[in-house]
Amino acid sequence: MNARNGALFVVSAPSGAGKTTLCKAITESMENLTHSISYTTRKPRPGELDSRDYYFIDEDRFRTMVAAGDFAEHAQVHGNRYGTSKRVLDDMVHDGIDVILDIDTQGARQIRAAYEGAVFIFIMPPSLAILEERLRNRKSDREEDIRNRLRRAIDEIREYELYDYIVVNRDFDRALSELRSIIAAERCRTKLLKSGWIEDMLK
Amino acid sequence: MNARNGALFVVSAPSGAGKTTLCKAITESMENLTHSISYTTRKPRPGELDSRDYYFIDEDRFRTMVAAGDFAEHAQVHGNRYGTSKRVLDDMVHDGIDVILDIDTQGARQIRAAYEGAVFIFIMPPSLAILEERLRNRKSDREEDIRNRLRRAIDEIREYELYDYIVVNRDFDRALSELRSIIAAERCRTKLLKSGWIEDMLK
Repeated sequence: MNARNGALFVVSAPSGAGKTTLCKAITESMENLTHSISYTTRKPRPGELDSRDYYFIDEDRFRTMVAAGDFAEHAQVHGNRYGTSKRVLDDMVHDGIDVILDIDTQGARQIRAAYEGAVFIFIMPPSLAILEERLRNRKSDREEDIRNRLRRAIDEIREYELYDYIVVNRDFDRALSELRSIIAAERCRTKLLKSGWIEDMLK
Repeated sequence: MNARNGALFVVSAPSGAGKTTLCKAITESMENLTHSISYTTRKPRPGELDSRDYYFIDEDRFRTMVAAGDFAEHAQVHGNRYGTSKRVLDDMVHDGIDVILDIDTQGARQIRAAYEGAVFIFIMPPSLAILEERLRNRKSDREEDIRNRLRRAIDEIREYELYDYIVVNRDFDRALSELRSIIAAERCRTKLLKSGWIEDMLK
């Protein structure tokens, strides 16, 4: 009963808003929800694993995949390229698995155009001052990188109206609870329940 | 911050699906959420209080209110009339209070036409057999009333596609949790957050 297609959740946020931690916590705490693994030309950071965090590929292979139409969305961020495999995504949705796509606003616009019914969530920092503080506390970035990330953050926030839901990450537990509510609510959508069981019941 | 209009939740269900108990539990367990009190020409049942459960009025007064355009929605169910005061509803929404309207499909259609952005939730029994069992267990109804309620239940279920969300009340705690998620999620809607704080942040 209730057999249905998987739901697609697109989660975007400016760097430093806490998106990665939130997405990790939500996929660990909810059943039947998985995180889509992106392809990237970026070099692995310390601790990152191929096929777990990303599929790390080179520029040539990325270009070949773009030309073959293998990507559901792809984007360039800070000089690196990122993309989501169309086949992997479609298989998961077809198998009824709910998927989180952790992508930027460029990619979100492509999914919006291609996947009717996808749900768009934007994670907001409570203020630009707090965002800057969080970026500075990472300490791994140079001053120039921090300024680049802040400029890009403002450009991303300007696009918040592309998104269905806004989760303000002031308090982590509250933001996680809101994210969980959005996913649980979307699973009750009438449009996802078109498996005919209600019609069968009325026969 | 986040000053916003109240959200309007329309909850409908066939008699016996558990709507009244669910709506009572949800308004008691969530802040800033209230249950709209309907006007009715029905006689109070044992235990029901005027101005708490309903505003009990006579047929003449109901007709006068209809003629004056006082109702946001009104409907006739099993020979009794029910209506929601437009003024009370608009005041609550204006004051930022989220409101649950526990009304039937006739009323839901009127709200759909008049209140853009209202959220429509349908509580489903898990099966017609279980619905019939629940109606029979009430014991207060005569056989003819039970058959009438069942016929009407089927007519109401046929209209499920009018609703944004379906909550199947198989297990009470799970249904309550789904209802809570829907309300919490809707409070994160981008369209409710148009108080300009994001724009202010970007200035």
